[in-house]
Amino acid sequence: MSGIAAGRSVPIAEIGERVGGSVEGSPDACVRGVAGIEWAREGDLTFLANPKYRADLKTTRATAVLIAPGVPCPEGVIAVRTEDPYAALVRVLPLFDPGLPPVSEGVHPTALVSEEVSLGPDVAIGPQAVVEAGAEIGPGTRIAAQAYVGEGAKLGAECYLYPGVFVGRGCVLGDRVRVQPGAVIGSDGFGYAPVKGQYRKIPQIGIVEIGDDVEIGANACIDRATFGKTVIGPGTKIDNLVQIAHNVAVAEDTVIAAQSGIAGSTRIGRGVRLGGQSGLAGHVRIGDGASIGAQAGVIGDVPAGETYSGYPARPHRDAMRREAAVRKLPEIVRRIRALESALRRAPRTGAGKEREGR
Amino acid sequence: MSGIAAGRSVPIAEIGERVGGSVEGSPDACVRGVAGIEWAREGDLTFLANPKYRADLKTTRATAVLIAPGVPCPEGVIAVRTEDPYAALVRVLPLFDPGLPPVSEGVHPTALVSEEVSLGPDVAIGPQAVVEAGAEIGPGTRIAAQAYVGEGAKLGAECYLYPGVFVGRGCVLGDRVRVQPGAVIGSDGFGYAPVKGQYRKIPQIGIVEIGDDVEIGANACIDRATFGKTVIGPGTKIDNLVQIAHNVAVAEDTVIAAQSGIAGSTRIGRGVRLGGQSGLAGHVRIGDGASIGAQAGVIGDVPAGETYSGYPARPHRDAMRREAAVRKLPEIVRRIRALESALRRAPRTGAGKEREGR
Amino acid sequence: MSGIAAGRSVPIAEIGERVGGSVEGSPDACVRGVAGIEWAREGDLTFLANPKYRADLKTTRATAVLIAPGVPCPEGVIAVRTEDPYAALVRVLPLFDPGLPPVSEGVHPTALVSEEVSLGPDVAIGPQAVVEAGAEIGPGTRIAAQAYVGEGAKLGAECYLYPGVFVGRGCVLGDRVRVQPGAVIGSDGFGYAPVKGQYRKIPQIGIVEIGDDVEIGANACIDRATFGKTVIGPGTKIDNLVQIAHNVAVAEDTVIAAQSGIAGSTRIGRGVRLGGQSGLAGHVRIGDGASIGAQAGVIGDVPAGETYSGYPARPHRDAMRREAAVRKLPEIVRRIRALESALRRAPRTGAGKEREGR
Repeated sequence: MSGIAAGRSVPIAEIGERVGGSVEGSPDACVRGVAGIEWAREGDLTFLANPKYRADLKTTRATAVLIAPGVPCPEGVIAVRTEDPYAALVRVLPLFDPGLPPVSEGVHPTALVSEEVSLGPDVAIGPQAVVEAGAEIGPGTRIAAQAYVGEGAKLGAECYLYPGVFVGRGCVLGDRVRVQPGAVIGSDGFGYAPVKGQYRKIPQIGIVEIGDDVEIGANACIDRATFGKTVIGPGTKIDNLVQIAHNVAVAEDTVIAAQSGIAGSTRIGRGVRLGGQSGLAGHVRIGDGASIGAQAGVIGDVPAGETYSGYPARPHRDAMRREAAVRKLPEIVRRIRALESALRRAPRTGAGKEREGR
Repeated sequence: MSGIAAGRSVPIAEIGERVGGSVEGSPDACVRGVAGIEWAREGDLTFLANPKYRADLKTTRATAVLIAPGVPCPEGVIAVRTEDPYAALVRVLPLFDPGLPPVSEGVHPTALVSEEVSLGPDVAIGPQAVVEAGAEIGPGTRIAAQAYVGEGAKLGAECYLYPGVFVGRGCVLGDRVRVQPGAVIGSDGFGYAPVKGQYRKIPQIGIVEIGDDVEIGANACIDRATFGKTVIGPGTKIDNLVQIAHNVAVAEDTVIAAQSGIAGSTRIGRGVRLGGQSGLAGHVRIGDGASIGAQAGVIGDVPAGETYSGYPARPHRDAMRREAAVRKLPEIVRRIRALESALRRAPRTGAGKEREGR
Repeated sequence: MSGIAAGRSVPIAEIGERVGGSVEGSPDACVRGVAGIEWAREGDLTFLANPKYRADLKTTRATAVLIAPGVPCPEGVIAVRTEDPYAALVRVLPLFDPGLPPVSEGVHPTALVSEEVSLGPDVAIGPQAVVEAGAEIGPGTRIAAQAYVGEGAKLGAECYLYPGVFVGRGCVLGDRVRVQPGAVIGSDGFGYAPVKGQYRKIPQIGIVEIGDDVEIGANACIDRATFGKTVIGPGTKIDNLVQIAHNVAVAEDTVIAAQSGIAGSTRIGRGVRLGGQSGLAGHVRIGDGASIGAQAGVIGDVPAGETYSGYPARPHRDAMRREAAVRKLPEIVRRIRALESALRRAPRTGAGKEREGR
């Protein structure tokens, strides 16, 4: 079983075809799942990409293995030979994909869908989901159990909201947007005007607009704009527990790793990569194709194509150089001490202020 | 429509009055939303606060603009002249505020409200919300869909819990507390006693007590006290994904930016500002009015009024000085090398140990 | 009432017995809660562990105090004398523990439990919880209101899911697993294959497997494996807002503090401690008993038993040494300047290149 909830049984021949590999062993044997070499059981497909796992192959219980030509394979394990076993694995995974969890046939009787909602064909709304008045749900979109779609929100076609997702009033999702459990789209931006030491709330009347093919991670938060919109461009992928503040604009095909945070009004280009736990100050601009290291703290603009890291973030090469210099600090202190003691001795034999009166 | 879910139509004359500005153009024209200068459409109000956007004004499709006296405004855009366009904008936003999303008329039939609950007048409880026995809900408080209020919890007047909020057993909220979607108030504190390499849970029997006018961000977590209470003072604002551990006490009018974390028993004064992703160790004290930089790691007390940053956090001025010193490290190494070569040459011409026997 | 939702009335004599202490005052008096010395009210038990709170004891309104022998205790407060008042407190807390909040008698009528579910004896499923087809729920397990258990998920005995918890399709929990509100177990791993500048989703077909006696914090996220499983070993404790990526394996009795993040395929040994907001890169190994400081950024393996801190994380002793060296930087610059000026003077009195021609 190897952890696949609704595994399909796949013949080895189909796997060989899929990866363009040759099969050594029975092509009619079937596998029902994929697993790492140590954890694989009978009925599993495994793979050998890293030579350090070669020894483990001898004891694996896997039924078949994706393996490079020429690498020894123990008897009893079917070898599917392919030049790049990891790439082959990625191609094979969809064969086992049980697809998204089923939601409901149409609207579940316990779902609360306002009468003033527009539902496209083949919409599924799960148990105890709530869809408020004025919402528009595109064809084939599925809203799982206990999810919430606010007043006037618009979801495109073939979206999938996992259980417990919140989409706030007026927010707009494109097509094929996938939102993992517990994510919040359209919470209020964090905006307050200080008045005599107290904070008065600035109404957050904007929305969030999410492009096609975006994926949003579990318990991630995207705030609505103070006015106008917070924008996530098409194809962008956002990991779990990411924070995106009001009026941020992220362009297309950008990847934002877990627990990163982006402060208000910052603009991020296309094809950018943000490492885990990175933080971006408000009102900065990150150019297209830039890369921000994990845990970096970005307090100014980052030019297109650059790699920044550290805190405050700077070009990664500089950061590495400084890192190296800091590592040398104890040696620097030793060298200064040596210089000082050399100089202290020097004057006695002719050099130094004390002898100036000579 | 610039992203306002339930926009009102506001005459320009009303805007001019609100900001005490003069109108150039038709005061009877109406705007229905607010948007940035590039994204504004017909029917929107925009503003020009930053001179670098002056060029964009020429091509904006906005109907009206908040703009300083003397700045050129293209024909066809109604100008509302005011000395500080951004401040004017903040004053104008409430005109467009659609207010909090409606929850329900009274208790929704699918809400599960225990019979042993005390409900004030004008309480609204949304679909599939759960309110357990012994809870007390103050007048005008609204509990949105799918929110949860535990046994014996007490909510004051005019609170608003967004969908999916959790308020645990016995926790207490003051008046006008607003809790964004998915926030958790009253999860167990993280307390374990190590016994022979294993961890035995210490019961977390305290509560969380939240003062008036507090706002708590989406998916933020506030743990209940081990015993006694975790306290959030009146007027304090907490952003998304913030973690507040057991027995922390935060005084009034403090602002805690997204993804910050405060470890157990730490005490934070009034009017403090914590930057995003900052972390505070347990059992430290942050004085009134202190300011903690984004991503700072605070491991000791911070005096009132001080600004701390970096890791480990120290006075910001020191941190900047050290930062500058580190930046000079490569130069320092060069200077040491120069000194060393100067000294190496020096002895040959009279100074140095080698000649001492002379 | 010091914040205990369902306080028991406990006679002082019982407390004295429990901690093996002697009682000075009426052993028949009762306390109903525990509170810190400043916040305690009549009917509370307090404790004095830290001498700096001695003054507060004079004005406390507590009924009784856990206090070391010989420390003065004001009249009117019952003293329970014990060598280690804090340890005594930990032993006493369970007396006041109201236990986990009640969930339901059996399956609540508004819960949606598929007919194809296997329920052990004494299972409780709260209002509006959803349990999908093929799930197996062990004896005595309680699933609170609004929680979600996906298709084919397996929960052991005596587990407790708080409201709003998500357990995804096929995930497996051992016995006595406790999951705080809003936690997500089994969200998709963050896996995409870049294809011509776009990201194509790699199906995440694995599961999450959680051992016995694990506790998972509020709004924490544990991703399912790409294939195979993400594993949390028995006895491990995970705090709020922690991120655990696909295919991570955490061994037993490890403690992970709030807001930490562990990237894909990293392996963590047993008895490890991760400080708050720490981040671990993917594919690293943390040896048994290692300790990672708060906010550390770990980018390579950490040997068993070592303490690492800083970014990039290194042995804590080195990090401290570097920290000390950086602190000395301004002094280093001064010393270099002194050396330079000494050398500048030196040549004039006999040393230096300028005189070589002499």
